[in-house]
Amino acid sequence: MSTDIVPVPAAEITHWDHEADVVIAGYGVAGAAAAVEAARAGADVLVLERTGSWGGAAAMAGGFIYLGGGTALQKACGFDDSVDNMAAFLNVAMGPGADENRIADYCAGSVSHFDWLVGCGVPFKAEFFGEPGWEPMGDQGLMFSGGENSFPFNTIAISAPRGHVPQMSNKKQGEASAGFMLMKPLVETATAAGARAVYDIRAQRLVVASDGRVVGLVARKFGDEITIRARRGVVLAMGSFAYNEAMVAQYAPRIAGRPAASIEQHDGRAIQMAQALGADLAHMDATEVAIFADPQQLVRGILVNGRGQRYVPEDTYPGRIGQLTLYHQDNTAYLILDGHAQDEAMASLTPQLMLRPPTWVADTVAELEAEIGLAPGSLQATVAAYNEGAARGEDPLLHKKAQWLRPIGSPVGAIDLRESTGGFTLGGLATTLDAEVLHVSGEPIPGLFAAGRCTAGLAAWGYASGVSLGDGSFYGRRAGRRAARD
Amino acid sequence: MSTDIVPVPAAEITHWDHEADVVIAGYGVAGAAAAVEAARAGADVLVLERTGSWGGAAAMAGGFIYLGGGTALQKACGFDDSVDNMAAFLNVAMGPGADENRIADYCAGSVSHFDWLVGCGVPFKAEFFGEPGWEPMGDQGLMFSGGENSFPFNTIAISAPRGHVPQMSNKKQGEASAGFMLMKPLVETATAAGARAVYDIRAQRLVVASDGRVVGLVARKFGDEITIRARRGVVLAMGSFAYNEAMVAQYAPRIAGRPAASIEQHDGRAIQMAQALGADLAHMDATEVAIFADPQQLVRGILVNGRGQRYVPEDTYPGRIGQLTLYHQDNTAYLILDGHAQDEAMASLTPQLMLRPPTWVADTVAELEAEIGLAPGSLQATVAAYNEGAARGEDPLLHKKAQWLRPIGSPVGAIDLRESTGGFTLGGLATTLDAEVLHVSGEPIPGLFAAGRCTAGLAAWGYASGVSLGDGSFYGRRAGRRAARD
Repeated sequence: MSTDIVPVPAAEITHWDHEADVVIAGYGVAGAAAAVEAARAGADVLVLERTGSWGGAAAMAGGFIYLGGGTALQKACGFDDSVDNMAAFLNVAMGPGADENRIADYCAGSVSHFDWLVGCGVPFKAEFFGEPGWEPMGDQGLMFSGGENSFPFNTIAISAPRGHVPQMSNKKQGEASAGFMLMKPLVETATAAGARAVYDIRAQRLVVASDGRVVGLVARKFGDEITIRARRGVVLAMGSFAYNEAMVAQYAPRIAGRPAASIEQHDGRAIQMAQALGADLAHMDATEVAIFADPQQLVRGILVNGRGQRYVPEDTYPGRIGQLTLYHQDNTAYLILDGHAQDEAMASLTPQLMLRPPTWVADTVAELEAEIGLAPGSLQATVAAYNEGAARGEDPLLHKKAQWLRPIGSPVGAIDLRESTGGFTLGGLATTLDAEVLHVSGEPIPGLFAAGRCTAGLAAWGYASGVSLGDGSFYGRRAGRRAARD
Repeated sequence: MSTDIVPVPAAEITHWDHEADVVIAGYGVAGAAAAVEAARAGADVLVLERTGSWGGAAAMAGGFIYLGGGTALQKACGFDDSVDNMAAFLNVAMGPGADENRIADYCAGSVSHFDWLVGCGVPFKAEFFGEPGWEPMGDQGLMFSGGENSFPFNTIAISAPRGHVPQMSNKKQGEASAGFMLMKPLVETATAAGARAVYDIRAQRLVVASDGRVVGLVARKFGDEITIRARRGVVLAMGSFAYNEAMVAQYAPRIAGRPAASIEQHDGRAIQMAQALGADLAHMDATEVAIFADPQQLVRGILVNGRGQRYVPEDTYPGRIGQLTLYHQDNTAYLILDGHAQDEAMASLTPQLMLRPPTWVADTVAELEAEIGLAPGSLQATVAAYNEGAARGEDPLLHKKAQWLRPIGSPVGAIDLRESTGGFTLGGLATTLDAEVLHVSGEPIPGLFAAGRCTAGLAAWGYASGVSLGDGSFYGRRAGRRAARD
């Protein structure tokens, strides 16, 4: 058997190159949150990071953290929310198959998690961004990021925005991402609390004592094998498996060949290292999916599938549009919008360069339908039905909000959105609410903890922007605290 | 850590209650095929079966074995097929994510696998059943069982039926299932070749030597712990995880609460026993899905989703209709058919008792649409478009075959097919083409083999009736041969 991932018996280790109470593999958001909490709990903390610097996928991300239940920021922006209301939304939006216990736990701790982030120095501007978009166009701190205010979610819970976005100092100049503004204070806080870090070092194998307890790691640094002893626990925080082609083929083949919003270091290694110890997995098929279209265009048109049929309210969370398109519509969509709608989108807050020109333009819907190659009459019937409702401000089929309803006129165009999705994986190690890694026996593996996208988090199928930085930081903290007290 | 599934070190075993060269856990189709081949290869074979008799899910199944490439039965029924043609179909129909290497391997061996079954005494009648249905109504031996002759598959490969069904002696009297007629000769062949069996015994844990090799099993029989030594290898053939609620929630939540065509013994134990050794998994989200409707009705109506839209050619494999309904249409479908269509179905080969009466009946489509509660105009537009094409013998939207196209008239009814699906899981242990169980390192686990529905087989997402008995028996044979030569 190849030994490059098989656990190493502790008895075989003759020398430890590094030692710490808590050893954390990966310095993205989960690793940083774990480092802060473990160090604050008095543990000697060592973080191992594969690249040359802290940050991970988080530092390059839009920076959304999904929080609610009445955070200080929600209140400052004038929105009501409650723990139950947030849970009601997430139980539907993160499923089917979402773990209601985990969601309840996350929602109950959400307000204090926001306060904790602020306490670490993460800046948030108390301003709401209400325009369609993937992210705020300015430095606003709060935005709908999961379709909370669109159908069907606006019938399930009271709409509250929960996408909390760290404030950038100079967004217009592109000096930093909001994700960077999340990571920088967390790492500074961890460092101030005493956490040490080693860079350019890759965790390779877990070291296991004869009683089954994880007591360290073997890593590689510039070709050398490095041994690291963990006196209290190892925390795996090494990201998703979006860039492991074999794992994607085994577990999430629909997303194969289209990784997005992820980084190449997300190779699934942490998952496999723990699997080699008998660790259990969950929700390996779940993925975040973006659709490569701007919401300022999406809301003003209608999206149809390869049969010319509408299938999603166009004003919902665009990640939901991506998921439904990739998984339910064979990754085939066309955005139908008329000249007036395109002009409005061009005049919106979204920079024109980010908007797509129509792939086809025609005088009539019948001509457009033929140009796209849709079944004769299919798109015509869809547009006729949409226009009939839109003329009286209603969308009986999909309940797009009235503000975006306007009959489609001439000239009419279509943007080709076939094969226009990408995303990252959401499944991974099964863990307890204390971030202990579960063995298939159902019991925690002693000394082994995990958080972030190498674990199965809140989402079993659906998604909302901010869920990954949210559960990564939330359960990263748990992992750090729990490991420190072992 | 709970120890009820953790591997037992061989050094801890002081006494073996049973010994054999090859120990097979599970006496369904995969176990029986493994037993035949291992015994024929000269190994001393012991099969452990949890229930009181051989059979497994196979003995209760419709008995389809998916085979092609030009089997003797295909030829006798007048159908052309080739290995490449069969592979072209399966690569599309079993995906996305289907393993092309495994499919090529299976197709290349398909003709000789059919001959092997015949050689074991499995009877097949050289008669084709061409009516819509889940199974032949009589004792015919061959049937389309994967939508090969419907869109889009009839554009991808030359249509050939590949559902090979063992002949029942007295189907009308209900004396046996076709699956029983598959299992009985296989078990008799295994017994004649010298395979022994112990019943009422549950495999619990694998026994592992210090070098990592699997050398036996610990099992339970009426409360006693039994040790079984495997001199050459252990074959896991214990079925799917369809009845393990926790695993279904973790991996295939859409199918939760709706197991079908499965048996309660399918508790995922084999998968977890191997996971505890670091075994790798694949395609855990894949499921077979049946829709609880008779094809004689399906082909004569139109299926619409919760938006009143058609989404599948109604004359395709009904399992495909089930999958698309459950996964892509939120498990919501309505079968629209007029009085004439219902009368025709009632006069078909399907016994009237198996046909469903309409849930709603109306004089007009507009009234029916309102009774169902569909968006105003949605079903009317769908029926109008369908009727317009049907009147000239065409279905431009979904390409249902012309023989089933007839404009929908009055009175018109709808059968409520919401939440009307069920099925079993298709994912499991990752194995080599020699049925060796793969460790997450990518290397086989020495001494451990697996086949049948505790492994990931041909199907990554789609399905065709006969694929499970097909890959179970095919790779069961490989497992038996490979274990015997270890």
